[in-house]
Amino acid sequence: MVRAEVRALWHSVAMVKILLDCDPGLDDALAILLAHGDPNIELVAVTCVGGNVALANTTRNALQLGEYLGFENIPIAAGAGEPLVRAAEHASHVHGTEGMGSVSLPDPSTAAADIHAVDLIIETLRSQPGTVHLVATGPLTNIALALQKEPAIVEWAASFVIMGGSFTRGNTTPAAEFNIYADPEAAAVTFAAGWDVVMVGLDLTLQAIATPEVVDRMRLLGRLGDELVVPLSTFWNDDKNPEWNGQAVHDVVAVAYVTHPEFFSSRPAHVEVETAGEFTSGMTVVDFRADSHNATVPTRLDVDAFWEYVFESYARIQLP
Amino acid sequence: MVRAEVRALWHSVAMVKILLDCDPGLDDALAILLAHGDPNIELVAVTCVGGNVALANTTRNALQLGEYLGFENIPIAAGAGEPLVRAAEHASHVHGTEGMGSVSLPDPSTAAADIHAVDLIIETLRSQPGTVHLVATGPLTNIALALQKEPAIVEWAASFVIMGGSFTRGNTTPAAEFNIYADPEAAAVTFAAGWDVVMVGLDLTLQAIATPEVVDRMRLLGRLGDELVVPLSTFWNDDKNPEWNGQAVHDVVAVAYVTHPEFFSSRPAHVEVETAGEFTSGMTVVDFRADSHNATVPTRLDVDAFWEYVFESYARIQLP
Amino acid sequence: MVRAEVRALWHSVAMVKILLDCDPGLDDALAILLAHGDPNIELVAVTCVGGNVALANTTRNALQLGEYLGFENIPIAAGAGEPLVRAAEHASHVHGTEGMGSVSLPDPSTAAADIHAVDLIIETLRSQPGTVHLVATGPLTNIALALQKEPAIVEWAASFVIMGGSFTRGNTTPAAEFNIYADPEAAAVTFAAGWDVVMVGLDLTLQAIATPEVVDRMRLLGRLGDELVVPLSTFWNDDKNPEWNGQAVHDVVAVAYVTHPEFFSSRPAHVEVETAGEFTSGMTVVDFRADSHNATVPTRLDVDAFWEYVFESYARIQLP
Amino acid sequence: MVRAEVRALWHSVAMVKILLDCDPGLDDALAILLAHGDPNIELVAVTCVGGNVALANTTRNALQLGEYLGFENIPIAAGAGEPLVRAAEHASHVHGTEGMGSVSLPDPSTAAADIHAVDLIIETLRSQPGTVHLVATGPLTNIALALQKEPAIVEWAASFVIMGGSFTRGNTTPAAEFNIYADPEAAAVTFAAGWDVVMVGLDLTLQAIATPEVVDRMRLLGRLGDELVVPLSTFWNDDKNPEWNGQAVHDVVAVAYVTHPEFFSSRPAHVEVETAGEFTSGMTVVDFRADSHNATVPTRLDVDAFWEYVFESYARIQLP
Repeated sequence: MVRAEVRALWHSVAMVKILLDCDPGLDDALAILLAHGDPNIELVAVTCVGGNVALANTTRNALQLGEYLGFENIPIAAGAGEPLVRAAEHASHVHGTEGMGSVSLPDPSTAAADIHAVDLIIETLRSQPGTVHLVATGPLTNIALALQKEPAIVEWAASFVIMGGSFTRGNTTPAAEFNIYADPEAAAVTFAAGWDVVMVGLDLTLQAIATPEVVDRMRLLGRLGDELVVPLSTFWNDDKNPEWNGQAVHDVVAVAYVTHPEFFSSRPAHVEVETAGEFTSGMTVVDFRADSHNATVPTRLDVDAFWEYVFESYARIQLP
Repeated sequence: MVRAEVRALWHSVAMVKILLDCDPGLDDALAILLAHGDPNIELVAVTCVGGNVALANTTRNALQLGEYLGFENIPIAAGAGEPLVRAAEHASHVHGTEGMGSVSLPDPSTAAADIHAVDLIIETLRSQPGTVHLVATGPLTNIALALQKEPAIVEWAASFVIMGGSFTRGNTTPAAEFNIYADPEAAAVTFAAGWDVVMVGLDLTLQAIATPEVVDRMRLLGRLGDELVVPLSTFWNDDKNPEWNGQAVHDVVAVAYVTHPEFFSSRPAHVEVETAGEFTSGMTVVDFRADSHNATVPTRLDVDAFWEYVFESYARIQLP
Repeated sequence: MVRAEVRALWHSVAMVKILLDCDPGLDDALAILLAHGDPNIELVAVTCVGGNVALANTTRNALQLGEYLGFENIPIAAGAGEPLVRAAEHASHVHGTEGMGSVSLPDPSTAAADIHAVDLIIETLRSQPGTVHLVATGPLTNIALALQKEPAIVEWAASFVIMGGSFTRGNTTPAAEFNIYADPEAAAVTFAAGWDVVMVGLDLTLQAIATPEVVDRMRLLGRLGDELVVPLSTFWNDDKNPEWNGQAVHDVVAVAYVTHPEFFSSRPAHVEVETAGEFTSGMTVVDFRADSHNATVPTRLDVDAFWEYVFESYARIQLP
Repeated sequence: MVRAEVRALWHSVAMVKILLDCDPGLDDALAILLAHGDPNIELVAVTCVGGNVALANTTRNALQLGEYLGFENIPIAAGAGEPLVRAAEHASHVHGTEGMGSVSLPDPSTAAADIHAVDLIIETLRSQPGTVHLVATGPLTNIALALQKEPAIVEWAASFVIMGGSFTRGNTTPAAEFNIYADPEAAAVTFAAGWDVVMVGLDLTLQAIATPEVVDRMRLLGRLGDELVVPLSTFWNDDKNPEWNGQAVHDVVAVAYVTHPEFFSSRPAHVEVETAGEFTSGMTVVDFRADSHNATVPTRLDVDAFWEYVFESYARIQLP
């Protein structure tokens, strides 16, 4: 898709509401930026979960970002600090000790909403059934707990998109991607809940690399680029990978799927989450040959269109 | 202990508050009777979970019992209908289709409290820290969810007693007792939460048999005996067991532990819950030789004192 | 059974042939003594496996014992040094570094037979089908490998008796007994092979304690008592067990079962071996209520008759 | 590599000896053809294992092929009929009921060698240490049993190459390739044995497709093409795969690796075999980032050079 075509899409896309459950996190932050910048997205709530770093950090990072961006009336709530069954494992070697890499925003002046994330998810979806897209870019603990407490959210969500899993190889282990690895039981509950899970996995997000060319373009964003987008996109380096060409912006892709599914080729599949394996715990086992399906799995991304969309959305952000 | 000694105890025991999380269930009902009849127990709330039968049944049974007994201001709340991770399995072959065996009480005229059981557990314990004993006689799903949402309940509970598990053999499988088998992940979370779990397991409760002699005595209770205690104690028969001598009243023993720990010999232990085994899922693996402990495991019951206590308590119940 | 009755049995018991697969080991050595001393037993071969200590040690111990006792034409062969799938774990904290506790016999002057234990088992059973009782008192690696190579041994063995497993608790872990724990996959193969496994487990062998009284009587055996029986029966002490009253002579009981099943009460059962559990690996899951059976599980031992039999057999041994 | 270059290689390659452990099977048969046709390969023995079809069939197929091709003095031995621990699962839906698809050769006039495959493997490698390449193209049961009986084969084999596993996706399940899936415990033993396993997995063999063009060329082989190569290469069709373009000749690639490693790009890796997973049993978990390695994993095949080599070798076969 060429740039002009992408621009034309601004006008054809209907307004979408998104509730973002996340664990910022470098790419979670970039995903929040996208949801904030795209004028066709109404971000109705941000719920936080322990994941890339501990819950206290992910929640504080979300609050700081909200103030930096000038959020008004978007509730930010804290949820599960620990996985459903297992002990927490974080990924601070990727995201930095506090979760935002080298970015250090001012301490937040407001506290998280006085409601548990799980209750906020349930109430948000219950109050406007069929209209809010649920996007989860961290471990699925909050989602599993919400399903436990109110199974009807399966009916109420306009769609459900996750960043997580893979149909080939993992990143935390050779078999498992971090978000699923961090809470495989929650993921198992989530995939079994009776809805169609759009699984934006590693196979896809590793197509969305912030290459040097992409980063150069982001520098054109001025203060937003200098203070947020560029440092968030360049904090981590994979020394062990000789073919390394930049960070993948995993979570951004999940948000993009909601507004622009036409950027993606997808296949229906039946996905099971391995919880019992010795070497495969947290693996998403994706069966494209199954007769019944519980997931839609994007397999190919229109990379140019994606970046065009992201850049255009970021360029619309006006910092307070 | 002889009868006179037991009676003397009525006066020496301080008043205790109990929150009972249960899945009535024959013996759950008998446990509620005990908590209601013992004047030294203040039953502060009853929370229900899916287990012996489905959540809708366990909740309705609790409501019916509450009305039959004339509960005043004791909230009864519904909680988790499904285990934390797995699909539900019930035990209606033991407890009858609706969970109360042959007992059929009038439809309840009131509904469950307008609060989720998990939130009621948290709020009850939070509001009077250190004074309420938490007793769980069903699968531990509600307890695990409460721990997830508010880990501080570990500090707030005056003690935590469960009926569940075994240090030798199971009943649902050769390795696993029903309550743990029904939601092993919840049990694993519960044993790992940092408190001392009093595990009143099968080894103990199989000492508390409603033998023909016990049942005969219960017939002396009049309408309560005829309508509730006797039918609840005699509904199930284990045809396969040539040594069968009556139903065990498992859950009753857990309530008795709170008021009369002196009826029990106990040992400290470290308990792990098997969640991964092919033939052992839901087994409580009880290590009496471990250096660190997370549980107190009663191993021997003063059977006569127990039944004396139960009968005396039942005898004090005045039906409305 | 009183002493006179036991003595009368010497004449009524038919001669039995035993092939003993073992890992000496304190109690394996005592089992070899029994098979050697009872004039109604013809010990046709001894095969060794890694277990209590490494294969080199168990084989050397068997050779030393054979020479000490004056074995003639009884082949002793070495078999599997490693479990079927897992890495080896030994129990030298119980049996001493070299496997015979404080007993130190002269270096053997002969080498093991020039045939692998697995092939010796197969050939011995093939050559005299229906007449040789196979007794295994170590991990079941050799047996599983023999079943792999020649499934017909199931038909050829006159009976198959193991010391291993438990229907309540273990010793190596709270769930698992050492012989099964050391090679659970081999045990699983063995129980699934289509024969009736006589499982002489811990529940039974812990009834066969070499109490101070028993040991005192063994002192009457003269040089055999002083040099072998007493030191082998008293090497290990369980400091952590306040009720400790002497070593159990586990493996001896398995040999006694072949000649004197009338000393035992037994129940048919279906036994599965857990190989996948996190805390239960190597557990024998014994289902007494199953409709189909693959095992006979002795549950009660006539302790006095057992010790009388053992003492009488030991007393007949004439050292060369 | 162009054709002339490949031809030049005939003269530069030293003679290699191969012992082929296999379960013919369509592509096993094609692999035997390659080992027979390449004048630089001396096929020293063929050992059979249950796999694609039952052991009786794989052995008979090997014997029939040997007679059809005029083998002289190449022993063919039968080995394990059942996996190490699990029950056998075959793949007759791919290979046909008898294992050779539509090919039906005359009944063999000779029987298998009077030695178990495991003993033949051990004796062959022991008698000429460092000179025989061990190639396994079926489940690894025979190999694991040989390692159990004689760990020194690890030192004696000139190299060890398997067809099996995958570093991305499986074929029998989304996670597991058939040969590893059929006996994961044997595969785990084999990868842990201390040698370097050349793992020619699905990722590689799916590059070696008998496309219509390849098959057309094979028709030029005359009777061998008509009677064997073409029917063996075209028996199976994957109806569910819209991109299907012909059968992969998996096992042939493993033999080619021995003589022509220069056709392959490879990476060192640490491989674990999952034996415990609910959905991932039999998966090879391939870690390319590990510090220590137990495997060499070919990742890319020079497809043209491969087929040129195969065709040239087949063309040299003179049927008796």
